[in-house]
Parts: sequence; C-alpha cells; structure tokens
Amino acid sequence: MDFSSKLLEQAVDEMSQLPGIGKRTALRLVLHLLKQPESQTEQLAAALQKLRSEIKLCKNCFNISDTELCDICANPNRISEIVCVVEDIRDVMAIENTAQYRGLYHVLGGKISPMDGIGPSQLTIKPLIEKVKAGKVEEIIFALSSTLEGDTTNFYIFRQLEETPVKTSTIARGISVGDELEYADEVTLGRSITNRVPFESSMKG
Amino acid sequence: MDFSSKLLEQAVDEMSQLPGIGKRTALRLVLHLLKQPESQTEQLAAALQKLRSEIKLCKNCFNISDTELCDICANPNRISEIVCVVEDIRDVMAIENTAQYRGLYHVLGGKISPMDGIGPSQLTIKPLIEKVKAGKVEEIIFALSSTLEGDTTNFYIFRQLEETPVKTSTIARGISVGDELEYADEVTLGRSITNRVPFESSMKG
Ligand SMILES: [Zn+2]
Ligand SMILES: [Zn+2]
Repeated sequence: MDFSSKLLEQAVDEMSQLPGIGKRTALRLVLHLLKQPESQTEQLAAALQKLRSEIKLCKNCFNISDTELCDICANPNRISEIVCVVEDIRDVMAIENTAQYRGLYHVLGGKISPMDGIGPSQLTIKPLIEKVKAGKVEEIIFALSSTLEGDTTNFYIFRQLEETPVKTSTIARGISVGDELEYADEVTLGRSITNRVPFESSMKG
Repeated sequence: MDFSSKLLEQAVDEMSQLPGIGKRTALRLVLHLLKQPESQTEQLAAALQKLRSEIKLCKNCFNISDTELCDICANPNRISEIVCVVEDIRDVMAIENTAQYRGLYHVLGGKISPMDGIGPSQLTIKPLIEKVKAGKVEEIIFALSSTLEGDTTNFYIFRQLEETPVKTSTIARGISVGDELEYADEVTLGRSITNRVPFESSMKG
C-alpha cells in the first residue's frame, strides 16, 4: 500500500499489528476515526494506555483486577477452598456468567506449549502449587480447554500435586445441552459416555 | 459482559466503538495488547493521536496529506488540467496503484446521501466547481462507485458544470455495477480509466 501520508501509514501499520486486523481493515478503522470527533480517538488512546500501564493482577488468583485482591477473591461468601484453574480472564467471565460456581479461580495466563515456546515458568503454576502446599486448598478443578496443550498443562500440574492430599477434578466434557448427538465430534461424544453420571444426579442440574 | 476490572472494561468499550469490532473481538484485541510489551500499546496510541490531531487535507485536492500540497498535486509531471473526482483516499490509492493515470484528483469526502443526512455542503463540491470556473481544468473524470448515491453525486456536479466548457467523463464501466472501487483488480481499474467515456453518454446506459 502506498500512502500519501506518513502519519496515516504509521497509524495503519500499528493498527494492523493487532491479531486478525489486516492492512485493509486497519485503514478502514483509521479512516473511521478521522471522520469522528477528535475526542473519540483521544478516549480510545487514553483507555488503552491507562489499562496497559496501570494493569494489575490479583495477588491471589492472577486475574486482571484494579485492586490488589480481585472482587472474587475478596468476597467472603466465595468458598476459598475450591480453586478452578483456567487459562485467562475470558474463562473466568464465561464461568461467572453461569452463576453456578461459588469457589475461587487461579488464572494460569496461558497453556504449556513447547511449539510456541511457552514453558511452565511463564505461567502462574508455581504460586498455584505453593497455595496447595500451604494447605489452603481442598479441591482443584481443571477447566482448561481440552486440547493437547490443555491436557499437557493439566497433567503437569496434576503430577506436582500427587503428593498433596488435594482433590483434583476436571469439568465434565460432554454434549452441549440442546445439541443433537449426531453432530457431536467423536472425542466429545466418547468422553461424555466414559464420564457418564448417575441419572438421578443429572436430573438435578 | 461482566468485567473484573474497570480499566479493562473501558478499553474494551472504546475499542468496540470501531466499526465491525464487537465486544468479544475488542476483548481479544485488548488482551493481546496486555501480553505484548508496553511499548506496542504506547506506539499504537501515539500513532492514532498524532494522526488525528495533525491530520491535514491537501488544499488543492483534499486528499489526506502531511503537507499543504499533497505529493500528487505538488508533482510537476502530473497533468493538472485533468481531475479525477473520487470519494476518499482509498480510491486515490487504488487508482495510483494502476500506474495508468497521470492527472490530479479531487477527493469529495463522501457521496450525497439524503438517507445518511449527507448533503452537497458536507462534501468538497464547492471548491471543485470554483476550480473549474477559474479555468484551470479541462477535463473532469467521475470515478465514484456506481451506486444510487454515486450517480446522484455525479449528476449534481455535472449539472453545475454544464455552463462551463469543461469536458466531463466517467471511468468505463469495466467495473461491475455496484462494486466498490477499492476492491477492483488493477487491470480492470486501469482499463476503465484509459477507456473513460463522456459523461452524457454514460447517462444513457
Ligand atoms: Zn483474585
Ligand atoms: Zn493534492
């Protein structure tokens, strides 16, 4: 792309570094901002800068938080002995949305992925193990996506917890409520059969 | 969406005001920035702010430019007596890419669209008419996309130029009716400029 303006080119270049935003889309977004009042660009830039520079992670669960302890960890009505291990804040938001879970979380910040150069030390695995070894946790629920990386991460943590008395579980994998059996993928269907639950308890959900 | 952080929520809110960016996509983009070095967010914010506050329009053709006269208008090798009328900078970039055109441009900044509340006075039609009446232009090439709004805009300008001796033409309709200029391939676009036809005869079609 040949731009008539270096300023425009730089803005498009920066915008197109975001994942899934190509040069053409970036140009469309930037031209849109130019048609809006200057205040909109100011507010966007300020919000991104403020977030990036002031961002905190909860010192207990490592979720994104504006305070030292996030609202969930600071809530005395949550059951602090149950900890759900997730990849990032989007998983916390999805589970909180169900209003079914009363325990706490532990946000890993990713999954072990040798292909992407992500090892255990780049994740918050060590503080999780320490938390368990300090005897504060009764149950760990693994809720990582069931990919090779997710399973590897679960297993890595599981092995380190074997010597502790902590109970470990994974969220049930199965057919989505309302989904037709015939459209489910084989792995999901297989797991949902293996992990079948007593009929009585399935009726309570 | 329930966020655990006001800073995160504000950044997502601002990002999702961009066209085509929903809340979920905005969250993905913002979380990506949080994983990158702080410098990337700084550079993105700075580039957007700098562009928005320092943006200039060429005083002759109204294209986005860093200087008073854009590179095209300032180029003595361009044929200043031929002026191609386009909607915005993306059309200029698309036509420049063909390397088929040696005249200048006039960027309208949009099309007449009563539905969107865009009238002639919000576009740069007046300076175009003045330029022609000052006797500096021999030929006007209409290169707006052939939609109802494009045709309306062409005709509005054409009527105001009828009393002047200026020659008017439209780019040849090698481009599919209804298609946006910027998505046309270079060969088609190049030919449609070379084979431009008198505006009057295009109205008969
Ligand atoms: Zn927390
Ligand atoms: Zn110019």
